[in-house]
Amino acid sequence: MNSQNEVRDFIEDGHAVYLRHLSIDSVIFGYHEQQLKVLLLKWKGGLWTLAGGFIRRDEPLQEAATRILYERTGLADLFLHQFKIFGEPGRSVRTVEEIKNLEEICKATVPQSHWLLDRTLSIGYYAVTEYSKVTPHPDFFSESCQWWDVEELPPLIFDHRLITQEALKALRVNIYHQPIGFNLLPEKFTLPEIHELYETILGKKLDRRNFPKKLLSLGIIKKLAERRKIGAHRSPFLYKFDKKKYDKALSEGVVLAF
Amino acid sequence: MNSQNEVRDFIEDGHAVYLRHLSIDSVIFGYHEQQLKVLLLKWKGGLWTLAGGFIRRDEPLQEAATRILYERTGLADLFLHQFKIFGEPGRSVRTVEEIKNLEEICKATVPQSHWLLDRTLSIGYYAVTEYSKVTPHPDFFSESCQWWDVEELPPLIFDHRLITQEALKALRVNIYHQPIGFNLLPEKFTLPEIHELYETILGKKLDRRNFPKKLLSLGIIKKLAERRKIGAHRSPFLYKFDKKKYDKALSEGVVLAF
Repeated sequence: MNSQNEVRDFIEDGHAVYLRHLSIDSVIFGYHEQQLKVLLLKWKGGLWTLAGGFIRRDEPLQEAATRILYERTGLADLFLHQFKIFGEPGRSVRTVEEIKNLEEICKATVPQSHWLLDRTLSIGYYAVTEYSKVTPHPDFFSESCQWWDVEELPPLIFDHRLITQEALKALRVNIYHQPIGFNLLPEKFTLPEIHELYETILGKKLDRRNFPKKLLSLGIIKKLAERRKIGAHRSPFLYKFDKKKYDKALSEGVVLAF
Repeated sequence: MNSQNEVRDFIEDGHAVYLRHLSIDSVIFGYHEQQLKVLLLKWKGGLWTLAGGFIRRDEPLQEAATRILYERTGLADLFLHQFKIFGEPGRSVRTVEEIKNLEEICKATVPQSHWLLDRTLSIGYYAVTEYSKVTPHPDFFSESCQWWDVEELPPLIFDHRLITQEALKALRVNIYHQPIGFNLLPEKFTLPEIHELYETILGKKLDRRNFPKKLLSLGIIKKLAERRKIGAHRSPFLYKFDKKKYDKALSEGVVLAF
């Protein structure tokens, strides 16, 4: 949605195109060198928000999540996991100021009975990416789009802080059952690198010996004959993912216990 | 909903009372002596189905799930976990026969444009109970309500087989992070009893030594001085849950690795 006409159609006839009462909000986590961030958009003249939007009447959910993320941030090819639906009756009540702001952006009126003011339940998705490798950009409704440290979020619209916290909880549970790292680490990495990735996402220390032993015993990573030369006396062995075993663990689930 | 008038109101004016496009379906697992079952209702003259229903316009989701389960089966006081939303566009298309059947039960007509024939996304919940301790009963729409072995389900309506399978997957993942057993075992139990409970739900063998060691080290169960007399040469020690540690693990999450 980039032209004024498209936006006016959305405001005036959106209820004919989209399912009422439902939206999708995606929490995009970004990892880079021991930092975990989250991607937020800033409404023109308003608060920060997750990348969210509405589901077309005949659209499969996963497709909707992918389309919305692309339309709002330009990001593609992320593996979006559905993790929870947020449905408290008062969760998305717009303030008078927010409605005025929306009217200003869209150059259209939004009466009390408007479909955008209905009770809306939001389906939460999350994904993890390497944030130094992607360039998100804001859409028509937003003045900026940027990465925030998960521990230092700005004030967020509606219940988007709760959605972000619940996404992080879900990611931290799922990391024990579905491996991550394939798109977050270089092709060949050292044990400290994968160790730091897991520690950063889990937000806690992991045992230095058990952790790699478990990944190796499941066959998800394998040791190479190569080493990386870091200094005169440091040249740790390199490892890589066994893509077949990684994908199998991803689709069937495993139990990692560090 | 038990009288013919209430049912007619539901069919004719339900869209004014309930949110469109959304339903809730609950997968109730029943455990008893190494058996895992699931509770199903049978539509009068139709297929088997999960205990499902619609969300009132201002109703919190968790309350809706509790109310629907009670209305449809009489079961109360279960801890319902939301686990996934099912939203494929064709997931809940009613056949001509199913619509006829519905009209017959309700003594009302259901035209093509009817709200019950809209695309509906369903929010899945699950709970686990001790099935020998509860007595579910069918509602107005159903001719019976009974426990089925999870491995031997009858033909189910819509995508209810998929919802059941996904609920079992979610239960099997969550069992590693939230303890279960408090309402499924006697107050004092033996290690083999809790071992069998976990093995039955996970559908796989667990290590005889690591499993209790982990539960004990987390403090979730504690050993009593008492023994149970089973035979002349068998009198295993009894254990009980430490309710405080159990509740803490339930609310904060743990990592069990057997």
